[in-house]
Amino acid sequence: METNSYFTSRRSVRKFSDQMVEESLLTSLFEETVMAPTTGNMQLYSMVVTRDEDLRRELAKCHFNQPASVGCPVMVTFCVDFNRFERWCELNNATPCYGNLQSLMMGLFDATIAAQQFVTAAEMRGLGTCYLGTTTYTASDIAALLKLPKRVVPVLTVALGYPADDADYCGRLPLDAVVHNEVYTDYTDDDLRRLYAEKEARDDSRSFVAANGKETLAQVFTDVRYPKSMLEPFSDKFADFLRTAGFPL
Amino acid sequence: METNSYFTSRRSVRKFSDQMVEESLLTSLFEETVMAPTTGNMQLYSMVVTRDEDLRRELAKCHFNQPASVGCPVMVTFCVDFNRFERWCELNNATPCYGNLQSLMMGLFDATIAAQQFVTAAEMRGLGTCYLGTTTYTASDIAALLKLPKRVVPVLTVALGYPADDADYCGRLPLDAVVHNEVYTDYTDDDLRRLYAEKEARDDSRSFVAANGKETLAQVFTDVRYPKSMLEPFSDKFADFLRTAGFPL
Repeated sequence: METNSYFTSRRSVRKFSDQMVEESLLTSLFEETVMAPTTGNMQLYSMVVTRDEDLRRELAKCHFNQPASVGCPVMVTFCVDFNRFERWCELNNATPCYGNLQSLMMGLFDATIAAQQFVTAAEMRGLGTCYLGTTTYTASDIAALLKLPKRVVPVLTVALGYPADDADYCGRLPLDAVVHNEVYTDYTDDDLRRLYAEKEARDDSRSFVAANGKETLAQVFTDVRYPKSMLEPFSDKFADFLRTAGFPL
Repeated sequence: METNSYFTSRRSVRKFSDQMVEESLLTSLFEETVMAPTTGNMQLYSMVVTRDEDLRRELAKCHFNQPASVGCPVMVTFCVDFNRFERWCELNNATPCYGNLQSLMMGLFDATIAAQQFVTAAEMRGLGTCYLGTTTYTASDIAALLKLPKRVVPVLTVALGYPADDADYCGRLPLDAVVHNEVYTDYTDDDLRRLYAEKEARDDSRSFVAANGKETLAQVFTDVRYPKSMLEPFSDKFADFLRTAGFPL
């Protein structure tokens, strides 16, 4: 069966033109986003949309000034939000009890599903998007900038704008790397070598390895892009923030 | 600007016809799903697709036999997967270090974004879907059934099939409940009363309140659907499972 060409041709965009995203278009995107499914239809998320240049510059710093964060005309920060729901409960003689791990998961699913609905809706209208996965690294700074109250946790940011050029396809693992039939079939070493062969052979992968003076592509991930020395301190920092926000893990 | 009618008319489906989902269609859906963005293009997730009747019956028990889990011809369990990536690292003289909170978040985003891409791709072809938010409640049982190795965490399950009938629209909060401009604008009590008024006035909400002998809709959530007595033990159980799976929080 043929695949849907939107899905198979979509690319994340990191370079945006100067064209502003029309307000009426943004509103339509939000109207489409809120139709995403959420846990028990509780809508345990909020979206903070930032267009103001000064604020965007400050937010970009929280995202380590990565290109998509600096050049985009709009940033949307997706947050787990129990503030709205709990305050509504309290107004209605109900006692909320959502400072636990399962509740945090519900909010994480709601916020992430909404983010992906937003991304899809935007891309289908010719806009470009890029997720900034750095939101949880600097959650406390972002929360301060966006004036997030307790029980609101920023988790993902989408950089949005009109694409400046065609983004390159960065490849994917073969389908049998990620799809398991009936139960999980664990990989043999040979499976893994086969499944990652194309990724390792790509020109951009080889350039990464050479530019970083590494022996293998895997070392670029473990030693340069996502090293222990970065992930562990940011994990402690995020756990601290979650505690302050009302979610002790 | 007009909204995209797919998004504004989509509904979660809990009743499925007997019609099986064609294998070629499932393959197309997975081909579309893997084009979803993932953290650093690491694809830190796996999808386990279950058609086998006996296995589906056992999985449905893990989802408390909720209607969508019992009646669907296909279930897809979306998992955070560091097993594949870490084993590839080890084969390539690289030392993975992903048993921390930020890594878990990366996997959660990848798995959830992929799940929503799958849901959208499926719905756009006329299939019906329903998320089973119970996956994290019984993660250890699901992991045993699906033979998940260490470092693989089931997080969301999608029930899939052809819809048996038109699903009802269950309503959404007004847009200004979930969208904040520039920074978060906290709600006054009056805001909250206004934003939840339509939800509280719905016939299905009133029926819920009456059927459960409660005073307010909020109490249905805090006392019946998502009570502390359920969320806290399931939180402890999930934290235990995460520890066993290699993610001590």
